[in-house]
Amino acid sequence: MPDPIITLTTDFGEGSPYVAAMKGVIIGINPAARLLDLTHKVPPQHVRHAAFFLAGAVPYFPPDVIHVIVVDPGVGTQRALLYVEVDGHRLLVPDNGCWTRLVSPLSRPIVRRLTEPRYWRRPVSTTFHGRDILAPSAAHLSLGVAPASLGPLTEDWVRLDFPSPVLTPDRLAGEVVFIDDFGNLLTNIPGEAFRAFSGRRVRIAVGEQEVTRIVRTYGEAEPGTPVALISSSGELEIAVNHGSAAVVLQAGMGTRVVVMT
Amino acid sequence: MPDPIITLTTDFGEGSPYVAAMKGVIIGINPAARLLDLTHKVPPQHVRHAAFFLAGAVPYFPPDVIHVIVVDPGVGTQRALLYVEVDGHRLLVPDNGCWTRLVSPLSRPIVRRLTEPRYWRRPVSTTFHGRDILAPSAAHLSLGVAPASLGPLTEDWVRLDFPSPVLTPDRLAGEVVFIDDFGNLLTNIPGEAFRAFSGRRVRIAVGEQEVTRIVRTYGEAEPGTPVALISSSGELEIAVNHGSAAVVLQAGMGTRVVVMT
Amino acid sequence: MPDPIITLTTDFGEGSPYVAAMKGVIIGINPAARLLDLTHKVPPQHVRHAAFFLAGAVPYFPPDVIHVIVVDPGVGTQRALLYVEVDGHRLLVPDNGCWTRLVSPLSRPIVRRLTEPRYWRRPVSTTFHGRDILAPSAAHLSLGVAPASLGPLTEDWVRLDFPSPVLTPDRLAGEVVFIDDFGNLLTNIPGEAFRAFSGRRVRIAVGEQEVTRIVRTYGEAEPGTPVALISSSGELEIAVNHGSAAVVLQAGMGTRVVVMT
Repeated sequence: MPDPIITLTTDFGEGSPYVAAMKGVIIGINPAARLLDLTHKVPPQHVRHAAFFLAGAVPYFPPDVIHVIVVDPGVGTQRALLYVEVDGHRLLVPDNGCWTRLVSPLSRPIVRRLTEPRYWRRPVSTTFHGRDILAPSAAHLSLGVAPASLGPLTEDWVRLDFPSPVLTPDRLAGEVVFIDDFGNLLTNIPGEAFRAFSGRRVRIAVGEQEVTRIVRTYGEAEPGTPVALISSSGELEIAVNHGSAAVVLQAGMGTRVVVMT
Repeated sequence: MPDPIITLTTDFGEGSPYVAAMKGVIIGINPAARLLDLTHKVPPQHVRHAAFFLAGAVPYFPPDVIHVIVVDPGVGTQRALLYVEVDGHRLLVPDNGCWTRLVSPLSRPIVRRLTEPRYWRRPVSTTFHGRDILAPSAAHLSLGVAPASLGPLTEDWVRLDFPSPVLTPDRLAGEVVFIDDFGNLLTNIPGEAFRAFSGRRVRIAVGEQEVTRIVRTYGEAEPGTPVALISSSGELEIAVNHGSAAVVLQAGMGTRVVVMT
Repeated sequence: MPDPIITLTTDFGEGSPYVAAMKGVIIGINPAARLLDLTHKVPPQHVRHAAFFLAGAVPYFPPDVIHVIVVDPGVGTQRALLYVEVDGHRLLVPDNGCWTRLVSPLSRPIVRRLTEPRYWRRPVSTTFHGRDILAPSAAHLSLGVAPASLGPLTEDWVRLDFPSPVLTPDRLAGEVVFIDDFGNLLTNIPGEAFRAFSGRRVRIAVGEQEVTRIVRTYGEAEPGTPVALISSSGELEIAVNHGSAAVVLQAGMGTRVVVMT
């Protein structure tokens, strides 16, 4: 049995000692825990960005890994902290919906409220529950503490409302839901829906701009040309080979994307 | 016994291969060492930033961890390199005071000069002692080499002079000592001193600006409002919910903060 | 035997979930693999930057480590993916030359094309071979799969053309080949060649600027002064103590550097 893995996803950035403090707390409780940074560059308090990040990251991990997420604009207020099991993945999260993009129609999430102070760091600050509650809870879980010990089951948790695309035989209307560090625009339009248009001449409105070039991969297009393709996670993506589609097309999260014949 | 942990704190940034080279050197000496990044985003040569970073990070770790710090404007000059034990924590550092914010009145630091070339990488460059001396010394320590083998005890080491707040029953005068990635302003005014003002109407001067709203946690204030609160490390903090206090209040390290009734 | 180490070097940045997805894929195949981030800040698609990064990082690692590099502008096109052994180091790379700065005149690289889909993630996307081919291949290698199982030997791989300096007894003409996060300019002029000029009065043209101060280490110069020194990897380096030579001298990769008497 390899030693347990705990991953960290935060909006803390890398200049301040908050991530390091969480690592110290975890190692202090379980010196054998193996820590993996997923990202500390979620934009500050950007729960929706965290949701799409997690949807693009957590499913690739095997089920025994514990994921700690600290994107927590409500820290210290009445918002709960949760232990979640979804499709076999285990997460410790603030109850702000950051994990709910992982929930599919077939998922049967098991959700517990963290109420058992025995597994917390004392005293608990009002502004850093990642260090004082989530990290120590993860460390105790990694030592074999049963999830049921952390707190009671609950059905009452925040679900983020994710924009649904409107898909008709002649028109796919969605939006940009994530922008990666290359400036590629990830949309919520399913790849299969887009593929159903193949063979037809389509144009794609991205905000006020238009994209007409459809490719299989970035390198098929001349540098600088905006292109549409199926992303590595299976949705319609707008990209610019050797450039930033976000910059070239002046697009951001929420920019409307419409595929038309 | 879990394998030994070595943490890395540098000002190298992440585009250049210096951090990777240190990791390689450590793994080359002790293939079982477990490496943890604390940060590589200390502002270049900013020893004082490193000091506050370490004070916010190292105390959370258990004592058997080895911390390597490479923020080293004096590399290659006559400044010494040190092995330090302070409150049970073990550090390998340039002798520029970067670790001395960890020293409390009760601490009894044990400090050794690294003089034993047997534990260094050869040849030693003039510009990268992190790779050539600190990393290999850490790796050898993690293999069980006795600290005394690294070099002789010394009492002669650089102490950074940290600004002390001036605390009177009616006035607390301090300054911003650290700014985190959110733009929160961490001050050197102790939380207990500030709490003693509770119940009284106070205003807080932050440079030329004024803050009057006092909260327990960020989410209590409307987005955009500057607030004062007790930080997760127990000092007075100035923040802006969903914003950067550093930007909103045009404050930086050293900006004067005065609490008045 | 410590658990196997797999390092990651990408141009993915840190806000998007691509690095995390690769970590998940690796851990899913080999739960005991120990992951090390080298960098995720290679400038987008900058194969040449990656080449110099790897030349400054990989040689410090012991030979049993597996290095995965994903700087891959040609993803999904006809470019091959490779398993490489060079001077005992093992790499999984796109065939774009990113690893070829590691090849010395004495190296005898062993190169295989990755053709065996058994070791890939299915289905293979057209835009993320790092996740679908390189990461799983690395994980399988770390489990003991023989390199020969990954695909056939090849002699046909892309060699990057690195600029050679022109060295004469009176003049050393080279260029800036890498800029680190401090703004230090690393050149391709060998330190020994530069040392042969010692004792003579030299001036160094860096683009349109001139540097006359020669030092052993940064701290010998007054803050702000451009200096020349031998870098920690043994080449001529141009730096500014407490500043950025790239900014002060308005230099970039490719800026011409000429040492003259």
